Amino acid sequence: MATVNENYLKLPGSYLFSEIARRVNSFKTDNPDADIIRLGIGDVTRPLPAAVVEAMKKGVEEMSRQETFRGYGPEQGYEFLIRQIIDNDFSSRGVELSVDEVFVSDGAKTDTANFQEIFGLDNVLAVSDPVYPVYVDSNVMAGRTGKVNEKGQFDRIIYLPCTEESGMKPVLPQSRVDMIYLCFPNNPTGVTLSREELKRWVDYARDNKSIILFDSAYEAYIREEGVPHSIYEVEGAREVSVEFRSFSKTAGFTGTRCAYTVVPKEVSAFDSNGKAHSLNPLWLRRQTTKFNGVSYPVQVGAAAVYSEEGKKQVRELTDYYMENARIIREGLQKAGYMVFGGVNAPYIWLKTPGGIGSWEFFDRLMKDAHVVGTPGAGFGAGGEGYFRLTAFGTRENTERALERIKTRM
Amino acid sequence: MATVNENYLKLPGSYLFSEIARRVNSFKTDNPDADIIRLGIGDVTRPLPAAVVEAMKKGVEEMSRQETFRGYGPEQGYEFLIRQIIDNDFSSRGVELSVDEVFVSDGAKTDTANFQEIFGLDNVLAVSDPVYPVYVDSNVMAGRTGKVNEKGQFDRIIYLPCTEESGMKPVLPQSRVDMIYLCFPNNPTGVTLSREELKRWVDYARDNKSIILFDSAYEAYIREEGVPHSIYEVEGAREVSVEFRSFSKTAGFTGTRCAYTVVPKEVSAFDSNGKAHSLNPLWLRRQTTKFNGVSYPVQVGAAAVYSEEGKKQVRELTDYYMENARIIREGLQKAGYMVFGGVNAPYIWLKTPGGIGSWEFFDRLMKDAHVVGTPGAGFGAGGEGYFRLTAFGTRENTERALERIKTRM
Repeated sequence: MATVNENYLKLPGSYLFSEIARRVNSFKTDNPDADIIRLGIGDVTRPLPAAVVEAMKKGVEEMSRQETFRGYGPEQGYEFLIRQIIDNDFSSRGVELSVDEVFVSDGAKTDTANFQEIFGLDNVLAVSDPVYPVYVDSNVMAGRTGKVNEKGQFDRIIYLPCTEESGMKPVLPQSRVDMIYLCFPNNPTGVTLSREELKRWVDYARDNKSIILFDSAYEAYIREEGVPHSIYEVEGAREVSVEFRSFSKTAGFTGTRCAYTVVPKEVSAFDSNGKAHSLNPLWLRRQTTKFNGVSYPVQVGAAAVYSEEGKKQVRELTDYYMENARIIREGLQKAGYMVFGGVNAPYIWLKTPGGIGSWEFFDRLMKDAHVVGTPGAGFGAGGEGYFRLTAFGTRENTERALERIKTRM
Repeated sequence: MATVNENYLKLPGSYLFSEIARRVNSFKTDNPDADIIRLGIGDVTRPLPAAVVEAMKKGVEEMSRQETFRGYGPEQGYEFLIRQIIDNDFSSRGVELSVDEVFVSDGAKTDTANFQEIFGLDNVLAVSDPVYPVYVDSNVMAGRTGKVNEKGQFDRIIYLPCTEESGMKPVLPQSRVDMIYLCFPNNPTGVTLSREELKRWVDYARDNKSIILFDSAYEAYIREEGVPHSIYEVEGAREVSVEFRSFSKTAGFTGTRCAYTVVPKEVSAFDSNGKAHSLNPLWLRRQTTKFNGVSYPVQVGAAAVYSEEGKKQVRELTDYYMENARIIREGLQKAGYMVFGGVNAPYIWLKTPGGIGSWEFFDRLMKDAHVVGTPGAGFGAGGEGYFRLTAFGTRENTERALERIKTRM
């Protein structure tokens, strides 16, 4: 008799976006003429940069001729792409990596979800609260967590509160943790850490032989000087950190699919005899066994992100969204809201006025301003009383939404 | 202190293809003028069909314009592709599936490796011997197996011998098994099962509440009438079978990456209270949590496989390889070898002459005929004394290789 992985049964349903859809549809039925503007979406809307499109077409063309056709590529990605990644995203910031420390994949969601596989089930993990749900759910599925409480929090996960007092930055854990998920620029709060703040996490990990799983999918939105783009800009981070990057938000690849993960050879975890094992060959073994590499034309397109034209177009793309972010952030501030993020991230995290709940604010914003966002409570208990707006809409809709919030709320 | 998943440490190194490369390189150093022909490769070599190339270019073009740009798609694939799959690969053979029973992915390797995640760790699995190594390795990594013996076989895996006596077909297990991996047309042996033979497995699974994980990645190479293309052509299979398919070998997608998995809603496994859980929503939860869908232009290309032109071109592609298979099979038979496969599969499995070992035959074939293949022992203990040749070379090289085998061996 085949049995199921009962850890899956511990997961509560993922109701956030279906509940949003339900409420929006109900509102539309009652108000068929309402012109609803959606600023809840976490997906890009602008087309792929022209340099990427041209490169992908060439990649496809190569697949049409015997002499240039490519079958299976290296599971960990083509060297032509990895070298561009290292030169442009790391060497330029003083971080040295070797080709076999970068693993190209089809997505940062995939990698952040899969990476836990190479760890033992006895590790205790820490996540920010609020948090991107994939870090938690993938560990629940693996059986690394205990029971869930009425707030939706699991035993054996240390939730690191991000509060108004801490500027929405997670505080160091009070008890031992082994795997630490950090995401900066943060989804959903949009905040970043300074080099000094990040160094405290690296020092904690070094002192406790913990591993930091650093998600920097929104790195391309950093605009301020002094904010680290990579955790490896912090001294000692190479020994304790894995970094996840993506072309999704950088270059509009959410539907095209390419990302990468950096696993320096120094990063080690231990077996039950206390022997250290480098994570790099373990991840290589995982990827070569369970993955067959990213589509060749997609890798060609990703490499074009680093061409002179590509860099210019990517900057225009992220600048467009960051101007939306500025409009939202400043508009909300003028209207009296307390806001976080939106300076180095496409997300703006606002405190709901008068301490009302996230879902109550959702309903009020939809009914009064005809604007849809994402309730903070959807990102964990620590998100209650907060609300996320995103910069991925059109300029016109963003401006209209903020005008409505100013005049109707 | 972070700990590693110690199950990874049970895996012996994957030395098959690196050992082949080492021996070939050493031979080349000693014989720099030898014109080596490789018939060991398990990868396609012919370009993508023109219909696929055109469709992919259009898909890329759509990504370049605001109005037609696509961000995140459904994790389980676009309906335009799923409908083509159902109509052409299943309805046409009398198998009815609904849209939410087909999950598009980036590879059959990925899916056959990941699918075990939704099962409990207490399941006992059965695999053919010889076998495609991914089924075993992914379960070892998950912790579903015990210790490894000197033959490289793991406790808690039931190895089903495929022998000359059984025509290289696996025999039904003598003891209880819960998860059964079957691959037909088979890699590495090239053999297929008749509907009646496959029905015995379906009946076994129904009687024992087991699940059959059916890999039909080579379905497009079936040429004989009466050989089932899908396990769902067998009565009762919907209740106990998951089927993995791929565009890799069908349409030359090994470097382009698209595949799909069928999970009928009736297929269930049980929790510790004996309650049945449909695998379909569990797999959906797994995919929506850990995967973000296949690249949009790739899905457009895969859908073109089912256009009128696409079908014709795919048939030409597989016919080309199957003519190579015929040349190899008949050439070997004329030279006195006992062979399996090559009729409904691009793989030809030969018994080494005089009972010599797989690696000894490898060396002899390389030294005397300058032809490189794959030692059967690389696919498990049951492959010792056998050798795999593949039909994925060029026509000219295939003909020359067989001429050499006939005259020099």
